[in-house]
Amino acid sequence: MSNTLDVLLSHRSYRDYSDQAVSEADLDAIVAAAQRAPSSINAQHTSVVIVRDAVRRARIAEIAGGQPWIAKAPLFICVVMDFAKTNAALQLSGTTQVIHESLEGFAAGAVDAGIVLATMMVAARGLGLGTVPIGGIRRDSQAMIELLELPRLTFPLVGCSIGHFATEPTQKPRLPLDTFRHDEKWHGVPEVATIKAYDEELLRYWKSIGRADGLPWSQNTASPYSKVYYRDTKLVAARQGFVVDK
Amino acid sequence: MSNTLDVLLSHRSYRDYSDQAVSEADLDAIVAAAQRAPSSINAQHTSVVIVRDAVRRARIAEIAGGQPWIAKAPLFICVVMDFAKTNAALQLSGTTQVIHESLEGFAAGAVDAGIVLATMMVAARGLGLGTVPIGGIRRDSQAMIELLELPRLTFPLVGCSIGHFATEPTQKPRLPLDTFRHDEKWHGVPEVATIKAYDEELLRYWKSIGRADGLPWSQNTASPYSKVYYRDTKLVAARQGFVVDK
Repeated sequence: MSNTLDVLLSHRSYRDYSDQAVSEADLDAIVAAAQRAPSSINAQHTSVVIVRDAVRRARIAEIAGGQPWIAKAPLFICVVMDFAKTNAALQLSGTTQVIHESLEGFAAGAVDAGIVLATMMVAARGLGLGTVPIGGIRRDSQAMIELLELPRLTFPLVGCSIGHFATEPTQKPRLPLDTFRHDEKWHGVPEVATIKAYDEELLRYWKSIGRADGLPWSQNTASPYSKVYYRDTKLVAARQGFVVDK
Repeated sequence: MSNTLDVLLSHRSYRDYSDQAVSEADLDAIVAAAQRAPSSINAQHTSVVIVRDAVRRARIAEIAGGQPWIAKAPLFICVVMDFAKTNAALQLSGTTQVIHESLEGFAAGAVDAGIVLATMMVAARGLGLGTVPIGGIRRDSQAMIELLELPRLTFPLVGCSIGHFATEPTQKPRLPLDTFRHDEKWHGVPEVATIKAYDEELLRYWKSIGRADGLPWSQNTASPYSKVYYRDTKLVAARQGFVVDK
């Protein structure tokens, strides 16, 4: 089977899938691995919703702003921050849950959602499948909530498509490692020259794979981050009970 | 080397470490794997701070509420949500970053921090090392910020200790899989009987490993979640620029 480090170092996003279904055995292994991943204070405040139905996947592709690979890949898994589960524990204990009204609770839930997502993606690639992470479900989180019939105290944070890939994509370059790695203490943000060099490297990469619309990193980041690009997150989260005013 | 699925399915927290150092080659591989992990819109808004220094690790053990394994393991890696990095890109583009003032930005950053954490832990275990995740740095995030000299627009969300383990821990039972897995749509929170059965299973587990202070799941969750257990997260995040009012 697959070597762990090779799987991690070869990460790339797969967007071209064959029609071959993901076997129940592979899906079971992916979900089991995700549930076994670490969870803050063993609270287990995450859940996954597995979507195989093609009509529903087409709807998610639309919700995510038009991402055809979600409709094409046979499997979409949504990672849900789930404080409804812990709330059931608190009700049994005769106490009232407060954590979901705090940014601390949101932080713990979102970090754990990221852990679940990464674990599922690594498990899938370890099984020889392709996968692509989808944050775009937050573009219309209310629609996702309705589609998956998610209750109060839950929130669909992220997801991924999984399938047998038709073509193997290339690996996008990253910023130089020292913009990510700091030893003992912070050493500063990337220099202008570093960003410019990466911008050029990324443009050469886009050209090499024939992507005419590919942007340099600084522009690609500036466009969504100069505003709140998925603007309903706070509103819909509050509607679900995550008021984060504490 | 290690099989990926075996690594994931055998996850457990290691808290007993030998004095053997983690090699530079292993550390480099762990950090490289983490940087290669998926990042929302390729923004790469995470960084890691590697702490080897024993005095600093002892301080982190204290910050985290007294967790001796942080001082014992030769390596601690802090995962930082890093919108200072993206801010440098926006400055170069002549635009003003807004995303860090929104819950959407916090969600994207915290999910990516979870992805980085999971990737580092999986990489470490793939190399035969032990690791334990540490959310307890948020118990006093201001102290972490000062220790690591983190600038505005960054926040230390989570971390992990890594080292060669002295003893191999057992694996803690999880809630039944169907409390985590939902197919096509939500199927409800765990039944009271399910929670009670898990509470009893966990008590048997604590007894089997000689932990007299081990609590059933519902009580262990109720105690921290009936309040905001790391109560400074919102305040310190706001001080760092993450006001999340959008």
